[in-house]
Amino acid sequence: MRIRKKPWADNEFEINDRLINNAERYKGKWSGVFGNENPIHIELGCGKGQFITRKSLKNQQINYIGIERHSNVIVSALRKARESGCGSNLKFINIDVSSLRDYFEPKEVNRIYINFCDPWPNRKKWAKRRLTHKNFLDIYEYLFDDAGEIFFKTDNRELFEFSLNELSDKGWRLKNISLDLHGGSEAVCEEKTEYEEKFMQQQLPIYRLEAYYNKGGRD
Amino acid sequence: MRIRKKPWADNEFEINDRLINNAERYKGKWSGVFGNENPIHIELGCGKGQFITRKSLKNQQINYIGIERHSNVIVSALRKARESGCGSNLKFINIDVSSLRDYFEPKEVNRIYINFCDPWPNRKKWAKRRLTHKNFLDIYEYLFDDAGEIFFKTDNRELFEFSLNELSDKGWRLKNISLDLHGGSEAVCEEKTEYEEKFMQQQLPIYRLEAYYNKGGRD
Repeated sequence: MRIRKKPWADNEFEINDRLINNAERYKGKWSGVFGNENPIHIELGCGKGQFITRKSLKNQQINYIGIERHSNVIVSALRKARESGCGSNLKFINIDVSSLRDYFEPKEVNRIYINFCDPWPNRKKWAKRRLTHKNFLDIYEYLFDDAGEIFFKTDNRELFEFSLNELSDKGWRLKNISLDLHGGSEAVCEEKTEYEEKFMQQQLPIYRLEAYYNKGGRD
Repeated sequence: MRIRKKPWADNEFEINDRLINNAERYKGKWSGVFGNENPIHIELGCGKGQFITRKSLKNQQINYIGIERHSNVIVSALRKARESGCGSNLKFINIDVSSLRDYFEPKEVNRIYINFCDPWPNRKKWAKRRLTHKNFLDIYEYLFDDAGEIFFKTDNRELFEFSLNELSDKGWRLKNISLDLHGGSEAVCEEKTEYEEKFMQQQLPIYRLEAYYNKGGRD
């Protein structure tokens, strides 16, 4: 897909200081970037940023980093964050998830959000590209070191099934699994992504889980 | 629901020696009933018995016990087993699952099948009656003692979601989770129940999981 460059993109990159360039230099020093020791939560593939923008506004005691590899998409998140009046607890980096180890030291990240990532529907050929493939889980385990958590949402049943199995196989503890997040009797009031709102309008089920990693054991 | 008594039921009960009456007396002695030390797999709510009948025919080295509380239903399973020419590795007991501890000693059962059990769809009121409720899992853990496994199938999404969470919360390791057993690219060739065949004809998704209990840890 060719993504048309937004005419206002260059200006947004220039006036917006939330995008951290050459972020490798902050590996092990993210607390310094935020100026405090608060926990750091990251969103992989933050897209246009609605979810993480709302999260950061609601939870001032958490530091958020939105990660997105498409510069022409992350620029929309930057604009949204600026226009929403988000505080200094929200930053963005324009990198690929596969290189996360170059940007964070073990224990720097406490929680990872993965929302509506590409399902790569042809299982055999593309499974390794799914952000819940065991190779990616290895990266997240490196980041968490001893303990951490993933909050995952998708509209894709096959990807969700795959993710349940990958996480279980690696010994992660699953919690609050939902096979129809907004259709059940107990409404979940978490922030929604742009995709999620679209799928809800179409009355498609949203799948969600929380997965807990604990190096020492399962509890 | 009033279940009409089958006119041939009394005769079937009389001529069929697969139904074990007063089965409490065999608690701790099931190997004696089967005349060998083979593993014992039980099916909770075996209904008309298609699944367990086929299992027993295919796996002569496993002992099977079908458990069903409705005598007017279990009689159909008895007839099916007799007409299918099943061997002596298949027995039935006409009891309620909640009383399993009165019929088996710890370590006597190696695997439990739960297929298309009643979903009790009103979550709050009836959840305790679901065969994957944590109170039932306590019973299964007693039966397994140190290790054992549950193979579970259902057509009910809410029950499956509930079961994933109950099992995860209790620390069981989940494997081979499927959100559309017969719709995926990798066909599963396990024996089917009567319900399952009906739902497949209607192209409804079947959910399935395997759950592994290990007292000492997760692996």
